[in-house]
This record gives sequence, structure tokens and C-alpha cells, in this order.
Amino acid sequence: MLTLYSSPGACSLASHIALRDAGAAFELARVDFKSSQQRGPDYLAINPKGRVPALVTDHGVLTETPAILGYVAATHPEAGLLPADPWTRARMDSLVAFLCATLHVAHAHKFRGSRWADDPSSHEDMRRKTPETVGAAFRHVEDECLRDGPWAMGDGYSLADPYLYTVARWMEGDSLDPADFPKVAAHRARMETRAPVRAALEAEGLDPVSA
Amino acid sequence: MLTLYSSPGACSLASHIALRDAGAAFELARVDFKSSQQRGPDYLAINPKGRVPALVTDHGVLTETPAILGYVAATHPEAGLLPADPWTRARMDSLVAFLCATLHVAHAHKFRGSRWADDPSSHEDMRRKTPETVGAAFRHVEDECLRDGPWAMGDGYSLADPYLYTVARWMEGDSLDPADFPKVAAHRARMETRAPVRAALEAEGLDPVSA
Repeated sequence: MLTLYSSPGACSLASHIALRDAGAAFELARVDFKSSQQRGPDYLAINPKGRVPALVTDHGVLTETPAILGYVAATHPEAGLLPADPWTRARMDSLVAFLCATLHVAHAHKFRGSRWADDPSSHEDMRRKTPETVGAAFRHVEDECLRDGPWAMGDGYSLADPYLYTVARWMEGDSLDPADFPKVAAHRARMETRAPVRAALEAEGLDPVSA
Repeated sequence: MLTLYSSPGACSLASHIALRDAGAAFELARVDFKSSQQRGPDYLAINPKGRVPALVTDHGVLTETPAILGYVAATHPEAGLLPADPWTRARMDSLVAFLCATLHVAHAHKFRGSRWADDPSSHEDMRRKTPETVGAAFRHVEDECLRDGPWAMGDGYSLADPYLYTVARWMEGDSLDPADFPKVAAHRARMETRAPVRAALEAEGLDPVSA
């Protein structure tokens, strides 16, 4: 049995959607960020990093979105979430790494600046720059990654899709206009036609972001 | 034919070592950071991100260390760089993602603060905090990831090893004492007994860091 520790709309939504895409049997456990539950002793015993997502498995606890996505796909091969061709797989891994280490990191500087600096003025400086840095990351996705669609890797739906959808939900909050990123916006809308995405949104108490 | 664009001692060293571990045929192309060659038009035509590493393949250009490592391993299966067991693979992917999105990102705040903030005072604040943040990341690796050795995933050498070695070379520069992280330090020394590592260091003009 699998248990996914998540917070509504956080990056854990990508793993949540992938579990539903895979048809996995899992339970969803909510970590309440408003009461800082992620830094409380009960949750730190599960994930010492104090972050979501964490996937509890029969083997142990797995953290980091790229690893959880890959594990869900590898253990549910019938869902076909991993490209069989090594080059397509590599392109998918590249986009996943970029969303994780560049786009999400840029986004995190809006409210989590205390991870990397101590002065309130530095945090405010980081917050001001977020639309520029997150915008540059979406510009790269729009111009360099998304090409012929309908999915991030082209014809085949893959793990990159729930991850891209999850971070693209943050655009408006980061003062970006989806109209400036039409391929990303179209991908977001297309994702919301999928039953696993709608089920994940409902389970997390979230609304679709497309019209 | 493969060409790896790299800068001596940068995170591209991980991909460089993995290519040698795999016995791959490749050329090494040096990107000169001192003259900001990574932001010049010739290099931006290869990698619009303006970073290293970039791996030029017959299919196209691949960026992001986790993706390059995975591609090298997948296309050279005889080298056995990818754990066959899905759980071990997932643990490896988790460590690779952590090194990429947390440890390397923390390290980058020392000299690359202008990615995330504009004021010189913010950059200085970030620089001051680097030993704390990079130290916390190595503490996690030391206490939660490295267990029985000799390699990052235990008995089997994997892609996590050249990546961990590469970032662990940065410890002294980030004002950390390797003696405070004995498992990481032992791993670093063990890596330097390997012929592919010694060959990569020589090709990049780097010295070993262990006694």
C-alpha cells in the first residue's frame, strides 16, 4: 500500500495525479502548511526534509518529485507513463529536472526566501524578482520544450505532463498572464479534460484553472 | 558521437565521469566561464540556457545533469550504472534530485545570487548563508542517504556516485570541513581511487582533493 503525503496545490499534486494516471492503490494524507505541520515532529519522523511530497511504500519513504514520479511509473508499467525510447525518456527527464531545479526553485523565492537569506530586505528583493525568474522559466518551456503537442513530449502522455500542469497552476499567483504562454495554457486546459486530473483536484479541494 | 560541453570542476564533471564510467566514445568541449563564453552567441546556439553541462548527441542537445546521467547509463547498459531494482533506482533518483535541486541550488547562492535577487546587499546576504545551507544539505546526505557504503546506494556503484563526488569537491570552497562529514569525505576519497575519475580530473586539469 502507498500513502502520499501532500498539501493541496503544492508540487505534491504532480505525484498525486501520476498515482491516479497509473491506477495505483494509494491513500492521500494531507499535510497542513498553515499550522506548519510539515515541520512538526510527527511529519519529520516520516520525512526529515520537512517538505512534501513523501511517498510511504512497503520498502520505505521516498521523497523528491522526480523520484516519486519515476517510481510510480516503473511499478505500474501497464500505464505507459515512461517513454520507451531512450532519447524521449532523456528529454522528459530534462524537462522534469528543469521544472524541479529551476522553475520550482524560482517560484520558491517568492515566499521561501528565508531558505537562502536572512534579512527581510533580501526576502522582499527575491519576492519582487519572482515574476521575472518564473516567467523566464515558463518562456523556456514555451519556446524550447513544448513543440507539436498535445503533450509535453509530443504524442505520448508522460510523467512530464502532471508535473508541468502542477507548476503551471502557479502562474497567476506569480503575476504571470497565461495568455503570454499559449502552449503552456493550452496544455493546462487539456490536462483538465482528463479524469485522473479532475479526480485529483476534487480530492485536494482545488478548482480547475481553465475556463 | 557525443560531445560534452563542460567547465572544469563545475557540475558537468558528474556527466564527464559517467561518460568514462560507461566507456562511451565522446569528445570534451570546454566552456570558458572566465570570459562568460556560456552566455555568448555560439554557446547559446547549442544551449539556450547558457549553462553546463550540455551533451550533443546524434538526436539533438540534452541538458540537465540528471537527464544526461540517465541517458548515458541507458545507452550503455553493459556498464551497469542504473540499479535494476525499482526501489534502489528510486532511491538513487531521489538523491540525484536532491543534489540537483537543493544542494547545488544552495551552493549557487554563493556566487549566482543575481539569478534570484537584484540588490548587492541581497547577494551578500545569500553568500553569508551558503555555509549553513550547503552544510545542511551535506548533513542530510551524511545522515540520511549514505549508510553502509561503499557507494551512495550501498554495494552497487551508480550514477549517484559521480554526482555526489562532484558536489563534494565544493565543500572547502563553501567553508565546510570534510571532517564534519566523514561518510561524504570517505566517499570522495574512494571515488579518487577509480581510473575513470582520475582520467576525468586529468582531462579537466583538476587535482584530487583527498590526501
